[in-house]
Amino acid sequence: MTKRVYNFNPGPAALPLPVLEQVQAEFLNFKGTGMSVTEVSHRAKAFEDVVNNAVASTKRLLGLSDEYFVLFLQGGASLQFCMVPMNFASGDAPVEYVDTGTWSSSAIKEAKLLNKNVRVIASSKDKNYSYIPKSIAPGHDAAYLHLTSNNTIKGTQWKQFPNPGKLPIVCDMSSDIMSRPFDPTPFGCIYAGAQKNIGPAGVTLVIIRKDMLEKIPSSIPSMLRYTTFTESNSLYNTPPCFSIYVLGLVLEWIEKTVGGLKKMAEINEKKAGMLYGMFDSSDFYKGTAEKDSRSLMNVTFRLSSEELEEKFIKEAAAEGIQGIKGHRSVGGCRASIYNAVPVEAVEALVSFMKEFAKKNG
Amino acid sequence: MTKRVYNFNPGPAALPLPVLEQVQAEFLNFKGTGMSVTEVSHRAKAFEDVVNNAVASTKRLLGLSDEYFVLFLQGGASLQFCMVPMNFASGDAPVEYVDTGTWSSSAIKEAKLLNKNVRVIASSKDKNYSYIPKSIAPGHDAAYLHLTSNNTIKGTQWKQFPNPGKLPIVCDMSSDIMSRPFDPTPFGCIYAGAQKNIGPAGVTLVIIRKDMLEKIPSSIPSMLRYTTFTESNSLYNTPPCFSIYVLGLVLEWIEKTVGGLKKMAEINEKKAGMLYGMFDSSDFYKGTAEKDSRSLMNVTFRLSSEELEEKFIKEAAAEGIQGIKGHRSVGGCRASIYNAVPVEAVEALVSFMKEFAKKNG
Repeated sequence: MTKRVYNFNPGPAALPLPVLEQVQAEFLNFKGTGMSVTEVSHRAKAFEDVVNNAVASTKRLLGLSDEYFVLFLQGGASLQFCMVPMNFASGDAPVEYVDTGTWSSSAIKEAKLLNKNVRVIASSKDKNYSYIPKSIAPGHDAAYLHLTSNNTIKGTQWKQFPNPGKLPIVCDMSSDIMSRPFDPTPFGCIYAGAQKNIGPAGVTLVIIRKDMLEKIPSSIPSMLRYTTFTESNSLYNTPPCFSIYVLGLVLEWIEKTVGGLKKMAEINEKKAGMLYGMFDSSDFYKGTAEKDSRSLMNVTFRLSSEELEEKFIKEAAAEGIQGIKGHRSVGGCRASIYNAVPVEAVEALVSFMKEFAKKNG
Repeated sequence: MTKRVYNFNPGPAALPLPVLEQVQAEFLNFKGTGMSVTEVSHRAKAFEDVVNNAVASTKRLLGLSDEYFVLFLQGGASLQFCMVPMNFASGDAPVEYVDTGTWSSSAIKEAKLLNKNVRVIASSKDKNYSYIPKSIAPGHDAAYLHLTSNNTIKGTQWKQFPNPGKLPIVCDMSSDIMSRPFDPTPFGCIYAGAQKNIGPAGVTLVIIRKDMLEKIPSSIPSMLRYTTFTESNSLYNTPPCFSIYVLGLVLEWIEKTVGGLKKMAEINEKKAGMLYGMFDSSDFYKGTAEKDSRSLMNVTFRLSSEELEEKFIKEAAAEGIQGIKGHRSVGGCRASIYNAVPVEAVEALVSFMKEFAKKNG
């Protein structure tokens, strides 16, 4: 048996152990093909099934109607930061963004680089991105409203999405996709790098409502135009086969082993509750996000000094607790508790944290 | 022991068995981290080593000086078709292309989509792309000369690259990179989707000479600008970690097990010679490429009728010989014999072909 650590990495992050074991077991012979999944043609029936099954799982889990395309692209959310305005904002149509931290800001920066008419209609920059804006007032003339559902660095998350009527929401859900159910109706496009909640790095899930495709300019390079992929079922050129395959297995695990997104959310709430509960009952660990904006995925906190934080992270590592250093841009501590992080790992972390507080309090 | 087929897939293609076995063996615990390689942070030392080792192997194998950057990007060669003109052709500088088949034509199409001043200075379209143009006359004022080193669909390959002096060559080497030594001096940029000769799908090797970076416009979206990646050692955002890791192992296999590119080329010539030898000694199989342009990687051929080709492919499959159907755009047969296809596989194919010719001749 392999000695596994408690993995709280922010992404790439923990994957479900049964999925990893299946990948390992069938790595030299994929579905009786006599080849590794990395050697199978992307045009072979065996691989088309992989894509089609992953599409179907995504639709079932999120309750998407046939109005939505499900695509598997490359380049991470970062490439979507430019593809979204290229495809959805033709001419000088305004585009609206809510700025809730680093990744929102990057999305805004790329839209501006493309000379789009960018309106930042709300921001939590005034309080160091420690909260999600309470009310927003989107315009009626915009091409889309862009949100970041969960902010990995500051540990905040939208609890309830706005419903701006006819204005489609475009949302970066990289860090909380498939962690809870939500109503997809207001969303024109959802994108998510896979490497936090649904798979390994190298594939980006992109969901697009059909009406969003109508205005895409044909002058966009083929690989940057969404219609290239909606028309080819993500198989315009060779896709990131292995990453799509593992993503499909993770979705199957969420559906069949966990039991769907409602169950997934209950587990995620339980895990987050164990950590936030400690912040509320003692002052040793101080959460950095405002209470009503706390992320269920990334629990960010500080200790009383940087020296103590360093000691905390070092002693945690010695107990097999990995990945709890805060993002290099903000410091502090962060436990990323995505879908695949088991309750036992959070229990081990909580137990270590209590012990550490006792010794150093 | 796993029953492996003889894999002649055009890409994704065969990978070296010892590499696949190593990936499988360490899949749940990468270098003692207690995590799968798919779960390790791309900012961790263990993964930075993966990137740095793959860069170093690439430089050693190709004999690249410190004037070259080695990058690992996403999107395949198809994304490079637009990134190349975006980055290297500012304003109305002419760009020159040699059209040797489907992939060259796609590269030309994307440059035109971007409204670049495209000159097709040579083409083998007149004879259905069955040869490599013998002489080309590049201009002195162009930003670059674009070539496709090997044409997977038509089975042709440049035997000797032109040396257009100060005009930098930009070359798509997706299907023969690392299959033979060559002088890198005339090349300003080399790119290659990994999934034929050097790894699984999902990562693109991009090699850029420093002087090529000087004129890149800063208005290009971050993810499409080469300097984003030269400045971050390919780690601007989360890279396709697993694919880079396997690519690194394949390069290590070429260096240490095979013994470098000269040895690799000898083996590749031997394999190709076994197949082409049959075309030259009998009329049963007819090669589609002109003799002096024959590819060492993709051996394309026809039988006397489509019915016979269908029978050939079907009976081959029954013998465990997979992937020899020609590209859907041209039909016929094709054996892709990339680096990782062992001599034994080609021997099995040749033996089957001889037997089939005897029975059906």
